[in-house]
Amino acid sequence: MKVDGTPRRAIWLEDDGNAIGIIDQTLLPHRFVTRRLATAAEVARAIRTMQVRGAPLIGVAAAFGLWLALREDASDASLERAYSTLLATRPTAVNLKWALEGVVTTVRDLPRADRAAAALRRASELAEEDVAINRSIGRHGLRLIEEIAARKNDGRVNVLTHCNAGWLATVDWGTATAPVYMAHDGGVSVHVFVDETRPRNQGAALTAWEFAKHGVPHTVIPDNTGGHLMQRGMVDIVIVGADRVSARGDVCNKIGTYLKALAAHDNGVPFYVALPSPTIDFDIVDGLNEIPIEQRGAEEVATVSGKTQDGRFETVQIVPDGSPVANYGFDVTPARLVTGLITERGVIPASPAALAETFFDRAGRRATVGS
Amino acid sequence: MKVDGTPRRAIWLEDDGNAIGIIDQTLLPHRFVTRRLATAAEVARAIRTMQVRGAPLIGVAAAFGLWLALREDASDASLERAYSTLLATRPTAVNLKWALEGVVTTVRDLPRADRAAAALRRASELAEEDVAINRSIGRHGLRLIEEIAARKNDGRVNVLTHCNAGWLATVDWGTATAPVYMAHDGGVSVHVFVDETRPRNQGAALTAWEFAKHGVPHTVIPDNTGGHLMQRGMVDIVIVGADRVSARGDVCNKIGTYLKALAAHDNGVPFYVALPSPTIDFDIVDGLNEIPIEQRGAEEVATVSGKTQDGRFETVQIVPDGSPVANYGFDVTPARLVTGLITERGVIPASPAALAETFFDRAGRRATVGS
Repeated sequence: MKVDGTPRRAIWLEDDGNAIGIIDQTLLPHRFVTRRLATAAEVARAIRTMQVRGAPLIGVAAAFGLWLALREDASDASLERAYSTLLATRPTAVNLKWALEGVVTTVRDLPRADRAAAALRRASELAEEDVAINRSIGRHGLRLIEEIAARKNDGRVNVLTHCNAGWLATVDWGTATAPVYMAHDGGVSVHVFVDETRPRNQGAALTAWEFAKHGVPHTVIPDNTGGHLMQRGMVDIVIVGADRVSARGDVCNKIGTYLKALAAHDNGVPFYVALPSPTIDFDIVDGLNEIPIEQRGAEEVATVSGKTQDGRFETVQIVPDGSPVANYGFDVTPARLVTGLITERGVIPASPAALAETFFDRAGRRATVGS
Repeated sequence: MKVDGTPRRAIWLEDDGNAIGIIDQTLLPHRFVTRRLATAAEVARAIRTMQVRGAPLIGVAAAFGLWLALREDASDASLERAYSTLLATRPTAVNLKWALEGVVTTVRDLPRADRAAAALRRASELAEEDVAINRSIGRHGLRLIEEIAARKNDGRVNVLTHCNAGWLATVDWGTATAPVYMAHDGGVSVHVFVDETRPRNQGAALTAWEFAKHGVPHTVIPDNTGGHLMQRGMVDIVIVGADRVSARGDVCNKIGTYLKALAAHDNGVPFYVALPSPTIDFDIVDGLNEIPIEQRGAEEVATVSGKTQDGRFETVQIVPDGSPVANYGFDVTPARLVTGLITERGVIPASPAALAETFFDRAGRRATVGS
């Protein structure tokens, strides 16, 4: 999408063809800095430190990481080492494993001399597929927004979103934001309440930045606020992304998503999850008990980073010295609270039958691999 | 309660009898600074800037504020001016109005010469009543904690609380924290998950500070985390305070309380609200539609203040330049989500009948005044 009028993607092959480029998302919204990643280790570090984050983008970045590893050393040992290192960066997102396995499957039976080039081709395809998928998600989600606009007197649709499932979390368009960008660009009056999304503030720092740069009307709210807004009829639809969706439609997403789903359910507000099909994990049924939930460092909760009045970057501690903190990265929203899944193949119920039927090809393949 | 071993209260008459003393809560948890307030204007400013906050404490502080006004000028005009100024500081808490009316009723028919002394006596009584009320709330709530401890194998009770309904929000003990302090001091193994409570972080800054200073085991969590913990069976009981409770038991409390009540309800976790009876507003039935919700400044959401690594105070901006924010101070939890109200007269259902019966004296008086 656009940054001050210039179209941008969240990941790209550098012009010299020897590295990938990314936007350092840890410096947003205050500084727009791009980074060049030339080795698998650099990619792994960028994922671990969340310079790149968002389930789909992590997958694509990791795929490029395998290419960079194979370019240096195309042996099986090198492939396995890079696979393990990259897979270990983030335990919750399933796209990461899916993307890595896709590259491994592509290259493992090839002669060593051909492996790097094949990995690059596959990683580039994954990036383009991600853009195409999100464009489809956008078109399907757009219809939901247009339907709401048509029945409201003022035609203005208020969306609430949590975390960043925007173009910064993917290659372009985003998942939850694709319908919003299409509505806005197509002349529908749309306004987004953006949960700040503690502890890392990806909503305030990334989603709000995306909307500010593209020109989409939005309001940043504390994570505590969404329930109140829904009680007052100020939210027409909730659209969030997902880090992993189970075969029965349980949705693992950024911590706090479950609370918004409860509030939507309690107030009759439709709650949609936008996801590309690689986010579906057909090996897992019970999302609540089977998806591992990443625990992250205490400093993300104990401190907040931002820009001082005179433009410096600073990190401030907000808890008392010595008070313990807990930092769970994700929670799981049970399928019963999800109005529908916005996928690249249409809007479907969050049910085992609908998922298996819509993605019969992926569900089947997975089941075979798993058995 | 104790601060590094020394018993403290949140408000007191200064030794010279000419002013009140408070703890500047905007500097916690990093600096413990007390302030001397010698005029009604200083008290109003301290309430407005939230150097003193918490529904019960605001009421007591405002009562002392009327004393300070009458000491300077005991005329009806002075009394009315101070009443209006103090009442306008915070629109949501009902205790403020209740405390101010209590002082006005006490002094208005007295000769001017006697008014200041009578106001001081009434304000001091209010402070002592608050301590006595919270001690009773503590004893009633303690039984709930003891019951849970008795049926758990490890005997350890995990409480979750939101915002600060601690001794800093009252004169002493706190409301939601009184049962916790009594359990801890009495040898029950109790641990509290403390919601950080954005945007002002009163949980992380005040409740965690209280527990750290008194020695109560606790863990600070982002506001997004409570639902996940409840899904995993990691919370035995939720206890929060209230800024206003309607005649039918709807609970107005710090923004985000409603989301925790929904999560508690969805996971079968008991959700209790601890409140002194002055928090009940018998003039209001439908909390959702009748309680005014304070909207506060954008800077509370857009920026975060804390301590830098080298010990300086600093404020950092966390949203993009120019992104609008919304800052609603409170939300309303419908009575249907409340397991019970912990009052100074016992634990009662959040129902019109139970409230009217338990507080027949206050309900009756209110109804008469209102008619």
